[in-house]
Amino acid sequence: MTYSPAQPWNATSRDVRRSMRRHLREESTAIVATVVSVDGSGYRRPGARTVVEPTGESTGAVTAGCLKESVIDAARKIVADGEPQLRTFDLQDDDDAWGLGLGCNGVIDILFEPLDASFRPALDELRENLPVTVLTAVESTASTVSAGDRTVLTSDGWSSTERNSLPEPVVTSIENRLDATASKATGSLSVTTNAGTIRVFVNRLTPTPTLLLFGGQEDVNPVTSLASRAGFRVHVVTARSGHADADRFPDATDVSSIRPPQLGDLVEAPSSTFAVLMSHNFIDDQLALDSLLETAVPYIGVMGPRKRFRELRESMDRTLDTADLDRIAAPCGLALGSDSPTEIGFSIVSEVLAVHNDRSGGRLTELEGPIHNRSEIG
Amino acid sequence: MTYSPAQPWNATSRDVRRSMRRHLREESTAIVATVVSVDGSGYRRPGARTVVEPTGESTGAVTAGCLKESVIDAARKIVADGEPQLRTFDLQDDDDAWGLGLGCNGVIDILFEPLDASFRPALDELRENLPVTVLTAVESTASTVSAGDRTVLTSDGWSSTERNSLPEPVVTSIENRLDATASKATGSLSVTTNAGTIRVFVNRLTPTPTLLLFGGQEDVNPVTSLASRAGFRVHVVTARSGHADADRFPDATDVSSIRPPQLGDLVEAPSSTFAVLMSHNFIDDQLALDSLLETAVPYIGVMGPRKRFRELRESMDRTLDTADLDRIAAPCGLALGSDSPTEIGFSIVSEVLAVHNDRSGGRLTELEGPIHNRSEIG
Repeated sequence: MTYSPAQPWNATSRDVRRSMRRHLREESTAIVATVVSVDGSGYRRPGARTVVEPTGESTGAVTAGCLKESVIDAARKIVADGEPQLRTFDLQDDDDAWGLGLGCNGVIDILFEPLDASFRPALDELRENLPVTVLTAVESTASTVSAGDRTVLTSDGWSSTERNSLPEPVVTSIENRLDATASKATGSLSVTTNAGTIRVFVNRLTPTPTLLLFGGQEDVNPVTSLASRAGFRVHVVTARSGHADADRFPDATDVSSIRPPQLGDLVEAPSSTFAVLMSHNFIDDQLALDSLLETAVPYIGVMGPRKRFRELRESMDRTLDTADLDRIAAPCGLALGSDSPTEIGFSIVSEVLAVHNDRSGGRLTELEGPIHNRSEIG
Repeated sequence: MTYSPAQPWNATSRDVRRSMRRHLREESTAIVATVVSVDGSGYRRPGARTVVEPTGESTGAVTAGCLKESVIDAARKIVADGEPQLRTFDLQDDDDAWGLGLGCNGVIDILFEPLDASFRPALDELRENLPVTVLTAVESTASTVSAGDRTVLTSDGWSSTERNSLPEPVVTSIENRLDATASKATGSLSVTTNAGTIRVFVNRLTPTPTLLLFGGQEDVNPVTSLASRAGFRVHVVTARSGHADADRFPDATDVSSIRPPQLGDLVEAPSSTFAVLMSHNFIDDQLALDSLLETAVPYIGVMGPRKRFRELRESMDRTLDTADLDRIAAPCGLALGSDSPTEIGFSIVSEVLAVHNDRSGGRLTELEGPIHNRSEIG
């Protein structure tokens, strides 16, 4: 397979964040374009982001492709202008039949901003595996507030950036509304103050998820490369130090070995870590499972047939309760009829994506409700 | 992502067949190892195959990795010996706890054969997109039959190879048993004749599936590369000739353009062709759908929200009946909560794999029944 980060449509959130960090480190000029809202059914949801360089090179995609040129043109103008700016792309056609397309036929609001140090506080929180919410003004009738003004909400409280902060009453109002609805969605909210109305883009960012693969045999490799492709940081952990050779798993972020009862010690960010036990060794998997259950990881996949898990479970010292079983997937994977190691990789990575996004994995055509995991707030 | 065909565990059936064709073309020495039966729960099912070169390089995997050295050693001995041979790998341990592993702890029968011209008739049928069944003796108490004797069942009837054919009564007996059970499984059957008992490996082979992607925007690219990785031949078809640039879709087998009402004309092997409409253009998708419904393709995925498909359907000249709707997936894909183009690629390719293997795509942990799509016959 040909995979190049130069193909912007292959980029994951992780790639986009890496690109942002690199530009900040190298102090090179770039523009960040972020979908703020989509009217109708868009190809991508609010929060989708692309980093555009002055050359026109980009990482990430905000549409299915149709707006590519327009987005790059707009980004270049922002480079020249220097100020954050909201642009509306109205691609609806007068002809009804054409207006029913996807994304490129809808109305999309995109915020264009210079990639400046105001992005750093959020990137730093994410690097520490902490979620973060970035509030950015996108439109304002208040003379004291401009598009791009920003306040960052971290677990420690409010954080300002090198840009102007949002007025305190605006941030408080948004915090209260988010708390009241327990919303985790990304989207825009309008706040009216004495000074005017300010539309704020509420960007909820979560850490890059980690896939912890326990096993050292060859079949770990396709799972590693597919999970990496899907945007996971992949940590391969073997029970035998002789198997912990980084060259064997070139797409893994980390390769290490550990005694199975200590596997849980390797979990750095429990809420964003997904684990799969595929050592093909009954005792090792059992000890590793026992260890992981002591952590708060939301997903523990166990490879192998139902009978094996039943026996594994019955011979454990602990009794698995409903909360334990809710996060154990045994057999792990989606029902794709997989046989080859690559198909098994698709089965597992797709299940982890579904769990990560709180979905069932079943066929969309047989389900009801929205396709996307994020719904707009407002 | 690092993907190398030199990593045998990444190989798909398509890669294994390509390797076989290349060795036959170049007349280079190689051994084919094929799983004939698995006692208990194996990592791979009967029919799993690896091609081993005298250097020890291999393509494809018959286990999760544990038997790698033994399989390569056995293959090398066959090279020296020259005769097909069945080998049993019994990796069960006396200790019950260890005996409950996967694959590498079970009993696996593997047939080792020189990669000779007897493989060609089946490969030729597959290249013509025809299914084919290869019958190969793996054990025999009849003095007239040896391991490796082979008869090929094609849609045209029986075909012999450069090896000895199986005795007519044996082939007839197997054909009758397959017809009686309508079995499509790969596995082994024993036939007793006056001369003795012959165990025959019945290998059901289907053509490499094709994924026909109708669309020319950038989001086609991740679907193309993931489908190629999953073992599909990918044909990208655009409605605009300007988009039909092979450089834009480096993992596609074919890139071409056509007027949407003629899309069905490009379907060469309907029963093994899966189509996804992702042109992002309402009229083009509608015309393409109408054209594909004239063919016998088993799957037509339509990208986009439910509302769009409802309107697309209502404004068609034809009325879609149940048989039509059964093969239309709208929205296409599994419910992974996908947002990025890569995640959408996983969603679509996983659904196509599930449909190809006659599975639901739901989570295995919430389903009953076997994990694998093939069950043994016998």
